[in-house]
Amino acid sequence: MNRTATALALLASAAASTLASTAAAQTAPDALIAAARDEALEGDTIAWDFTEGVTTEIGPRLAGTKAEARAREWAMAWLKAQGFSNVRNEPYMMRTWVRGEEKAAITAPFTQPMHVTALGNSGSTGAKGMTGEVVVFPSYATLEAIPDGSLKGKIAYISHGMKPTQDGSGYGLAGPARWTGASLAEKKGASAIVIKSIGTDHHRVPHAGGTMFEDGQTPIPAGALSVPDAENLERMATRAAARGEPLMLNLMLTPKVLGQTESGNVLAEIPGSDPGAGIVLLACHLDSWDLGTGAIDDGAGCGIIAAAAKYVAAMGQPRRTIRLLFAGAEEVGVFGGAAYGEAHKDEEHALAMESDFGADRVFAFEQTRLDPALADRLAELLAPMGVVRGTGSAHGGADTGAISEATDPVIVDLKQDGLNYFDLHHTADDTLDKVDPAQLRQNVAAWTATVALLANAPGSIEAAETLED
Amino acid sequence: MNRTATALALLASAAASTLASTAAAQTAPDALIAAARDEALEGDTIAWDFTEGVTTEIGPRLAGTKAEARAREWAMAWLKAQGFSNVRNEPYMMRTWVRGEEKAAITAPFTQPMHVTALGNSGSTGAKGMTGEVVVFPSYATLEAIPDGSLKGKIAYISHGMKPTQDGSGYGLAGPARWTGASLAEKKGASAIVIKSIGTDHHRVPHAGGTMFEDGQTPIPAGALSVPDAENLERMATRAAARGEPLMLNLMLTPKVLGQTESGNVLAEIPGSDPGAGIVLLACHLDSWDLGTGAIDDGAGCGIIAAAAKYVAAMGQPRRTIRLLFAGAEEVGVFGGAAYGEAHKDEEHALAMESDFGADRVFAFEQTRLDPALADRLAELLAPMGVVRGTGSAHGGADTGAISEATDPVIVDLKQDGLNYFDLHHTADDTLDKVDPAQLRQNVAAWTATVALLANAPGSIEAAETLED
Repeated sequence: MNRTATALALLASAAASTLASTAAAQTAPDALIAAARDEALEGDTIAWDFTEGVTTEIGPRLAGTKAEARAREWAMAWLKAQGFSNVRNEPYMMRTWVRGEEKAAITAPFTQPMHVTALGNSGSTGAKGMTGEVVVFPSYATLEAIPDGSLKGKIAYISHGMKPTQDGSGYGLAGPARWTGASLAEKKGASAIVIKSIGTDHHRVPHAGGTMFEDGQTPIPAGALSVPDAENLERMATRAAARGEPLMLNLMLTPKVLGQTESGNVLAEIPGSDPGAGIVLLACHLDSWDLGTGAIDDGAGCGIIAAAAKYVAAMGQPRRTIRLLFAGAEEVGVFGGAAYGEAHKDEEHALAMESDFGADRVFAFEQTRLDPALADRLAELLAPMGVVRGTGSAHGGADTGAISEATDPVIVDLKQDGLNYFDLHHTADDTLDKVDPAQLRQNVAAWTATVALLANAPGSIEAAETLED
Repeated sequence: MNRTATALALLASAAASTLASTAAAQTAPDALIAAARDEALEGDTIAWDFTEGVTTEIGPRLAGTKAEARAREWAMAWLKAQGFSNVRNEPYMMRTWVRGEEKAAITAPFTQPMHVTALGNSGSTGAKGMTGEVVVFPSYATLEAIPDGSLKGKIAYISHGMKPTQDGSGYGLAGPARWTGASLAEKKGASAIVIKSIGTDHHRVPHAGGTMFEDGQTPIPAGALSVPDAENLERMATRAAARGEPLMLNLMLTPKVLGQTESGNVLAEIPGSDPGAGIVLLACHLDSWDLGTGAIDDGAGCGIIAAAAKYVAAMGQPRRTIRLLFAGAEEVGVFGGAAYGEAHKDEEHALAMESDFGADRVFAFEQTRLDPALADRLAELLAPMGVVRGTGSAHGGADTGAISEATDPVIVDLKQDGLNYFDLHHTADDTLDKVDPAQLRQNVAAWTATVALLANAPGSIEAAETLED
């Protein structure tokens, strides 16, 4: 309460100043930035409003589909209502894959239904499904180790031991089973593959996500079992082996490829006063996997960056243009990020940041190419919220990848707590109730402080030694 | 470790005694009972073995189906392998309802799929489904309050605010929406009903369970939405109302009634030395709802009572016959409990107990008609595990209801912690990973102490003042 009062008093005094508000913002003392940060921390409702709205009025929004198009229309209306400028859709075409029916059951020597979901780019079993013997691989490496062609007619199953990690590093450990396990299984001769969901929960909600085949490979049916189903399958496999009997799985997945359809990026801006100072790009993605409503992945991310931009705008016109990129088609191959990078590669980008790791608190920041004095000021501004200075460098997100490669902006990563993220990631359980409003406000506050500092900083925000690159 | 060593020493000394083991058990000092209790507490694997086996080799086992029949065969083989006597199936016929396909989606003014499951006894929408306007009722009472026939052509929706409670009392508060909400909605003229799942979780796994129509009523389609879906529907309803537009739901549920099929109760015994001392009846139910694998409801319950009986048997032949009742068809109407009550009403039952509230720890005991001196000894035996003496009386469980009414046995309730029970109850998430082996062992230990005391107590275990009844 006291903090809010202080913040409002500072903001009021800034507004009442005889100086132009532009000048006030651009010479913003850190106390003014701290006041904006604290206003977000204690009272933000903007990020929640976006997340609630898009999950309630749109829900699942798979890239390239009509649902994603509805999400773009909805988001543009919301951004205009929030006062953003230059709100627009930048369309592009993409190859679109959509889910069909999906069923699985162990049929011998036991009889149990299994909860399965097709991985993106999975082939189809046809409507009649297929039945095959399951061969259990405890890891990706054990499937890699067998001879090519040795799984003829079998269904490969890959397990893993993924555990929650704050920085999400468990995803890197377990992820290959999903990312390229199907391609690998096809090379080994398998008719199909099912994997243990790449997730850390114990609910009957399989984790979707894309799998990649190589050029020239024919996609085999590829599904993920929920973690409890995968564990049950492994117990059944052990018991079947003890009896000397094969474990048989019936699998029915009927996804299809729609061919080329339209997707698009939604852009919105707070125009800056100095066109030569470079763009501050804040990115999230608007598409979601089709099982959940895209609350933590990535409705909250879009809400966070929009809210932060509004708090910065409320301080007065920023020096640099703040551009929001609500990217399309991130989940299925970062088509939106690639289209943005290509379309905007000739624009100067001073800073690129992305929010795409849920809605939990920021616990650390890392940067690449940031001026050391600004990094020190940023550390001071984030410290009251318990945000530490990370020891690594910043890499940005998937959607800022292409533009960062093209324009070498400063990158700042606000690292979010990911201990619960892979409980929900790409599942039907990615719904609004998983977003904690207090965590979300802390996140918006960290973004507000960062963007307020770097959108208004005079001169270049880049470290002197990297400016020559 | 020390406790186990003490327990084993006591058991060894009992076995080495020149007294018959029968006499040793029946005059068991509380130290010997405590040793058996602690052996279960620290090392039991029997309850887990049953729970893992039935969930892995059988899984869902809806009453009256072939899956329930497989579960009976499996359980009888397991009980014989564990050394129980008089293992048998007591069949009966029942009216059997089975689930069909189930889908739901909001179609206007928004478009989102919903996770739904049919309630037991639900009518069918037919394969083409039906679409109707949703009318939201925040509680059962608000639906009760409207005039009969006033919901013509509409789909009623009932919400609630169920919260976790240790003793499960939240179920009583929210339950009527499921138990009789469909019957009530039919009287109001509704074409169908969907309810917010009777559960305390936030996962996309709807809670199944039976709903009851009155004689002469035609069952309308009745489904439960998962809690996140229900919350989303309520948000959509609020936004639709603000626009002045109806909220439209498409619902497809195709359950059917198979007619009369066979179900059965599985019984097993540890014969007592004194046929006149009455039976100690320990009950659980073997059937489960069809969405999960029946781990906490009620695989664990059957595992607990079987394990406790085995620890008591290991002390020497008990005075009273200990009979396990693995009841059939509890979930869908307690048909097994009724059949047992009818078939065995002429046998003397000294004690009736039931385990059907998950696999978490016992925190209290309550009793009805128990001799006060035995109640004091029981309190002492349970106190080291933190089990308190409850303030209410014991009521037994659903499956001991009929026999208790017929024979007035002593009833002891070992009350289990239910704070997480309604996160899982009747959902696909009722799987083995939800059972904590340490909690399960504490539960078995409480049962072991109770059964050891009361199966062996001399004279009558009933309070003198109730013996005259």
